[in-house]
Amino acid sequence: MTTHPPATLRTTPSLNALTNPLVEKLVADAEALRLAVTTENGARMVDAGATVRGSIEAGRRIAEICLGGLGTVSIVPTGPIAAWPYSVVVHSADPVLACLGSQYAGWSLADETGDSGFFALGSGPGRAVSVVEDLYTELGYRDSASRTALVLEAAGGPPASVIAKVAEACGLSADALTFIYAPTQSLAGATQVVARVLEVALHKAHTVGFDLHKIVDGIGSAPLSPQHPDFIQAMGRTNDAIIYGGRVQLFVEADEADAKQLAEQLPSTTSADHGAPFADIFGRVNGDFYKIDGALFSPAEVIVTSVTTGKSFRGGRLMPELVDASFS
Amino acid sequence: MTTHPPATLRTTPSLNALTNPLVEKLVADAEALRLAVTTENGARMVDAGATVRGSIEAGRRIAEICLGGLGTVSIVPTGPIAAWPYSVVVHSADPVLACLGSQYAGWSLADETGDSGFFALGSGPGRAVSVVEDLYTELGYRDSASRTALVLEAAGGPPASVIAKVAEACGLSADALTFIYAPTQSLAGATQVVARVLEVALHKAHTVGFDLHKIVDGIGSAPLSPQHPDFIQAMGRTNDAIIYGGRVQLFVEADEADAKQLAEQLPSTTSADHGAPFADIFGRVNGDFYKIDGALFSPAEVIVTSVTTGKSFRGGRLMPELVDASFS
Amino acid sequence: MTTHPPATLRTTPSLNALTNPLVEKLVADAEALRLAVTTENGARMVDAGATVRGSIEAGRRIAEICLGGLGTVSIVPTGPIAAWPYSVVVHSADPVLACLGSQYAGWSLADETGDSGFFALGSGPGRAVSVVEDLYTELGYRDSASRTALVLEAAGGPPASVIAKVAEACGLSADALTFIYAPTQSLAGATQVVARVLEVALHKAHTVGFDLHKIVDGIGSAPLSPQHPDFIQAMGRTNDAIIYGGRVQLFVEADEADAKQLAEQLPSTTSADHGAPFADIFGRVNGDFYKIDGALFSPAEVIVTSVTTGKSFRGGRLMPELVDASFS
Repeated sequence: MTTHPPATLRTTPSLNALTNPLVEKLVADAEALRLAVTTENGARMVDAGATVRGSIEAGRRIAEICLGGLGTVSIVPTGPIAAWPYSVVVHSADPVLACLGSQYAGWSLADETGDSGFFALGSGPGRAVSVVEDLYTELGYRDSASRTALVLEAAGGPPASVIAKVAEACGLSADALTFIYAPTQSLAGATQVVARVLEVALHKAHTVGFDLHKIVDGIGSAPLSPQHPDFIQAMGRTNDAIIYGGRVQLFVEADEADAKQLAEQLPSTTSADHGAPFADIFGRVNGDFYKIDGALFSPAEVIVTSVTTGKSFRGGRLMPELVDASFS
Repeated sequence: MTTHPPATLRTTPSLNALTNPLVEKLVADAEALRLAVTTENGARMVDAGATVRGSIEAGRRIAEICLGGLGTVSIVPTGPIAAWPYSVVVHSADPVLACLGSQYAGWSLADETGDSGFFALGSGPGRAVSVVEDLYTELGYRDSASRTALVLEAAGGPPASVIAKVAEACGLSADALTFIYAPTQSLAGATQVVARVLEVALHKAHTVGFDLHKIVDGIGSAPLSPQHPDFIQAMGRTNDAIIYGGRVQLFVEADEADAKQLAEQLPSTTSADHGAPFADIFGRVNGDFYKIDGALFSPAEVIVTSVTTGKSFRGGRLMPELVDASFS
Repeated sequence: MTTHPPATLRTTPSLNALTNPLVEKLVADAEALRLAVTTENGARMVDAGATVRGSIEAGRRIAEICLGGLGTVSIVPTGPIAAWPYSVVVHSADPVLACLGSQYAGWSLADETGDSGFFALGSGPGRAVSVVEDLYTELGYRDSASRTALVLEAAGGPPASVIAKVAEACGLSADALTFIYAPTQSLAGATQVVARVLEVALHKAHTVGFDLHKIVDGIGSAPLSPQHPDFIQAMGRTNDAIIYGGRVQLFVEADEADAKQLAEQLPSTTSADHGAPFADIFGRVNGDFYKIDGALFSPAEVIVTSVTTGKSFRGGRLMPELVDASFS
């Protein structure tokens, strides 16, 4: 993996300035969206699917919060999987900053000092304030904020020790933090995970060493996976939605060789694990997530358009039957 | 039909607090949307298609007003009926309150004291203030408001006696009321009726005795029916759009037997009247609406996803040729 | 061509009052959309793709500015060209005023007094303030504004002489003007050009002499063409997106004969030049744009719905293979 350090440190646009109004709107509409808003250990907690039912619309809005206010997420009534017409669409004019600088669940929030056993991966604009991840060196971006938010794919909010860790890393007091959480099994949780269809393409582009600063626009879509009460099945479906039903178009400043290579490297078909439902793959590795080939986490089909040369390249393919079997 | 009384009376979110800004925006944009706003017998009248042309966008916004601010309506360029690509999509995170608590045209507004012969069915958030319908007992919801609005599928506004009846039932003066009306033949009228594709599924779920409190999310779509100047043909097309071209996905907290049964009971295929264009059916009963099998008023195709078990069930089928013939 | 002079001069709704907030929002979000905002010769310049990268979202918003605030533009993940799923959708409740009164690039802005060689066609609400085009006589509309904006499909902003000409024609000082420009080769440029799919239908309706006041609603869509660095190829693709991939539905107050005739006259298939990629046609006339049959500039497929009679008529056909070859 080649790294591409940026020439200068970028501090604008502010992901948090763009996102804070979206967080306040989510909280204001909590009842209509079936969310529970509480204060725990000084921080604001938005339960979007653990002890409350939540909603698909909550998931859609949480996905826009994850994108740091730099992208739109919508639910549309058609898509390439005939039996599952409703799809999630994600569009960002700055997919690198939106998806990697904010949406990527890259901040490991384990309870290291307490005994709660809590573990979640933090997503959202708070990551860009703490910049504890190496990724930010490569992105060359950091944000400052007087209030920030993190989104967790989790069945509960973080304990006091994790809140304190986040507050310290962000240089903020606990009352300046909002934690929004929903388990994968919930309406909001499944929706916001499927809305990562563009992000996984960005993350894989990063993994294969493509210069992120060359990615200038991106659109993605994937079928809205039906909820499942079992965590493994729920995780399986949201992953299958992306891995076998997701489609992404990236616009890159790159010559044809680089764009073609990216189109070949990006889709999930490059993975040795490709071809089976995600829940089965997860079972084969006895639930050890980190034994799964990382190359699997990517859209089924990609179009890479070189805005430098005007040529588009394609890779991967949808597997509608597998998606249908997974969702059914 | 089993009734499922709620444990407690729910008064939030306020449908009217959510809707009032949408009504004011509609009025502010009246000219761009080709609406006429007047005051009649003290109440504000918004003519969206009787003496003015109105517009599809007006219909889209009126549909969101009908939904009490708890749902979104959009026009998209693709759908399952190839020859009629433009479709209406409805999504609500609280389809029971949005569709039954507000959008359902359930308030009979006949001119009982005057001699105008006026008759219309009131839809929209004003219903939840007056709560004159038995349905509200079952919904366990009521709203209070200092201003409210009703939407009428009608060729004219209500006479003084009906305005007085609404004002009294809502405990408001006439000047706190807005009546928005458009005939089925108009651009706005046809659009807002097709946008009832999700509501008819909710209403039929209620009719077959499904516990409404178990319905936690819903999305629906149907082709935008072309306007027709003849009332019966116009009504025929808007109904055919839903009955033969509508598709709904409901998310329910229910076990597999209940979800499966609902999927079987919901679609229009369960009706003995199913299979003919609505205008023909209406002709067969000599225009006596109440002789038509109520089970017909439902989407062509449904997916019922049990969020309790993760299993989805299907019922019904689209009839694209019938829709095409009806629209042509 | 028959002209249909309106009975009275219309001055509302104000295109500029509707558009000014959209322009200010574009400027406020300049960095997130990768735009450069400067002041040149006293006027505000928004570079959306010449010396900066810009974005598809910027193009979408610029298209809404072009429409004078009377229409919506969205990017959706499905369309009729399988290999190029992402499409641009345009909807306006007042397509005549939105598309012809504002979006049409009808104001010739040549540098007549200077020596810059600058030439561009002005689009947007500033046209309705200057009303220098004969078209406004037929539209019977003019706007007044204290601030206005023009959109240019151009690789640079206008020189001082053109700014002065615009200022004088609008009766405004230079600092009341905003020029937004992007070349066809850019992300924003290509997007805003494809978003003219509805406008070209309106323009052709005007050319064939259809009474514009009878057009009461319109929706259009076309595949989002991939950017190309070469101007001719870029122009070729954006035109092919509309000419061979565009679809429009117009709603008209007209009898069946007139609606049928319009459906037959509107699509690009009526042109003798139809059938070849636009870049090839452009080559055949040695780059002399005005030798191309004007009838070519229209959507591939149209549906004309008479709201007077309820009957719809169709004309033209999509050519997906040609679009695919052009985009590839």
